[in-house]
Amino acid sequence: MNDFQFQNTTKVYFGKNQLSHLHKEVLKYGNKVLIAHGGNFIKNSSLYQNVIDELESNHIQVFELGAVEPNPRHTTVNKGVKICKENDIQTVLAIGGGSTIDCCKAIAATALSDSDNIWDLIEGKVSWKDALAVIAMPTIASTGSEMDKSCVIANVELGVKSGINGKAIRPKAAFLDPTNTFSVPPHQTACGGFDIMAHLFDMNYFVNADKYPLQFNVVETLLKTVRQKLPIAIKEPENYEARATMLWAASWALNSFCTSGFKTQASLHALEQFSSTLDLTHGLGLAILTPKWMKYLLDRDQSVANDFARFGVNVMGVEDGNDKVEVAYQAIDALQNFIKDELGLPVHLSELGIKNLPIEEMVEKATKGEKSLPRAYRQLTKEDCAHIYCMCL
Amino acid sequence: MNDFQFQNTTKVYFGKNQLSHLHKEVLKYGNKVLIAHGGNFIKNSSLYQNVIDELESNHIQVFELGAVEPNPRHTTVNKGVKICKENDIQTVLAIGGGSTIDCCKAIAATALSDSDNIWDLIEGKVSWKDALAVIAMPTIASTGSEMDKSCVIANVELGVKSGINGKAIRPKAAFLDPTNTFSVPPHQTACGGFDIMAHLFDMNYFVNADKYPLQFNVVETLLKTVRQKLPIAIKEPENYEARATMLWAASWALNSFCTSGFKTQASLHALEQFSSTLDLTHGLGLAILTPKWMKYLLDRDQSVANDFARFGVNVMGVEDGNDKVEVAYQAIDALQNFIKDELGLPVHLSELGIKNLPIEEMVEKATKGEKSLPRAYRQLTKEDCAHIYCMCL
Repeated sequence: MNDFQFQNTTKVYFGKNQLSHLHKEVLKYGNKVLIAHGGNFIKNSSLYQNVIDELESNHIQVFELGAVEPNPRHTTVNKGVKICKENDIQTVLAIGGGSTIDCCKAIAATALSDSDNIWDLIEGKVSWKDALAVIAMPTIASTGSEMDKSCVIANVELGVKSGINGKAIRPKAAFLDPTNTFSVPPHQTACGGFDIMAHLFDMNYFVNADKYPLQFNVVETLLKTVRQKLPIAIKEPENYEARATMLWAASWALNSFCTSGFKTQASLHALEQFSSTLDLTHGLGLAILTPKWMKYLLDRDQSVANDFARFGVNVMGVEDGNDKVEVAYQAIDALQNFIKDELGLPVHLSELGIKNLPIEEMVEKATKGEKSLPRAYRQLTKEDCAHIYCMCL
Repeated sequence: MNDFQFQNTTKVYFGKNQLSHLHKEVLKYGNKVLIAHGGNFIKNSSLYQNVIDELESNHIQVFELGAVEPNPRHTTVNKGVKICKENDIQTVLAIGGGSTIDCCKAIAATALSDSDNIWDLIEGKVSWKDALAVIAMPTIASTGSEMDKSCVIANVELGVKSGINGKAIRPKAAFLDPTNTFSVPPHQTACGGFDIMAHLFDMNYFVNADKYPLQFNVVETLLKTVRQKLPIAIKEPENYEARATMLWAASWALNSFCTSGFKTQASLHALEQFSSTLDLTHGLGLAILTPKWMKYLLDRDQSVANDFARFGVNVMGVEDGNDKVEVAYQAIDALQNFIKDELGLPVHLSELGIKNLPIEEMVEKATKGEKSLPRAYRQLTKEDCAHIYCMCL
């Protein structure tokens, strides 16, 4: 069993009536804050107005960076850096999804570095250690960026997504209000929810290391809980319990408790190159991929049968049986049916009118130019990756 | 559903090969450390010598406070305070169980206060906010004090146990090495393990508030995991996986994730006055109490049947059935048999030769002079408490 280190310092304010604590958190670092968000949808919301009121009534000066993209661009990060450097801003507040939070982390680190360009930090040309304070206010249950210490930024010119990682960019505080996710439409709710499940599959559940029973059982419980509550959040968007469960699950899927002791290379997140290549939503890409990846592995090598059968029985409610291979296939079917029927998502790219894929390019990105994914749950060669992509069409 | 706030900043070093990080953690605060421990058993251990070597080879000056009692006394705390104040010590390192860690927390707060007496802080005569750095090195899986921000101290003159609570005394770092618990004898392993279960029962599982499904399911999973691994840790004291599971479970039962959103008054920990009155081990007191408390509640009021039946089925492996009251009684039997047969603990005080109890005194302590425990899972009057104590004989 691997030794591990665990620390997560983010202060979480969870619930409906926590916004009045925001100014205290901001004033720990100074009286100027940059708010980043995705655009008019947030800007016209009562949440945004409430945040502004809370800050301004406490004499905090607010700056703004709008139009942060899904898959935030390094040029947008650099705009934020400029505002922070020119105005001596101490805190960056993200209102939005994982993309907005990631953008703020990137701004926070670059603003205290010797460069005005996040890409210099990503490429290691400029070193960084400290960062402005980041505060996260997620409006969708998905990436878990609000308690995590990494971010992913897109460089459209180079056609590359990459990021930085360090404890200085872990949000100092996160305001998790389930009512802020009530307006997320069913499709986005489903994609965000599957992203949570994929974090759990990839980094904690289908792993090749010795498992710590405690973490492993908790991960399975999180998966089961998400499997139960996600369809409710889709059908009843204002169901507080379902939204609260999804929002808290997103944080816990990625806050490094679940991964503690595991060192498996993520298969699904490596394979998920649909978002960067086809501009598909990340969670949708993962939902299309996951059952295909499982079926490919099981067809190839029945050593995965016990793990997949356990998943079927304990998470998907499949009936157990002596023939674990049979139960494992039923588990994959159950997952695919869940994605189609309960999440309302397509299970093949053809349903989206996509009939061809730049497979070679995607395989190169998935394997990062190496020959394979050697430390994944099951090793995947380039040919394996290509085969799985074909199954997704 | 209640709003809640959650933050736990302790840095955990988990595993066999983490001790070399100790000097880094100490040197963050200064180069003088007070080591507190329970006595010769620790002092003669290789762990103690390894700690001294690690510190002294990094030019850290070591002071020592031995003979910290189980249920640590305020006079012992005050001895530690004196050493810290006289020598300008910046860090207090606990090597031992929850009592030693609690003692260090109390020393840490008092040493930076205007008093030389912890009891002044406990009684609120002297205010405190800051504390010396606390580092915890638990040698038994039990209280979870290593990630928690409170401590309990005994004043033998007054016959009272009480404590302080604040984030400054939460350990900055905790070194959790399962091999440090290999030498814990079966009886202490069982008592410590039941203490973990009782934390989960009391503060998170049998609760009267709206439950957050995520936390509640995780608590149930922790209970089930402890129920599986504790008997192994008892039978195979050097089983790394079982010891690791117990040690990490102890931390998680009390690190405030599980309690987030719950506000129930603890019944079992209020009733557990055997340790203060009879000098019984706290975990043993809880093990004797828990099934009696459950039976008393179920006899009195069948509204608890569904909760107890769920516990029986999901944690204890009792077969489910339509008659939830029947299943609930089976759950209590299963728990009592588990305590007797798998943990090897007595289930009645008479087995320990105890035939009488100072019931009136215990009831007063349990209810802290109030008429009842009004916000517990089920309200307990003084008569209820007395009845439950009689059932324990």
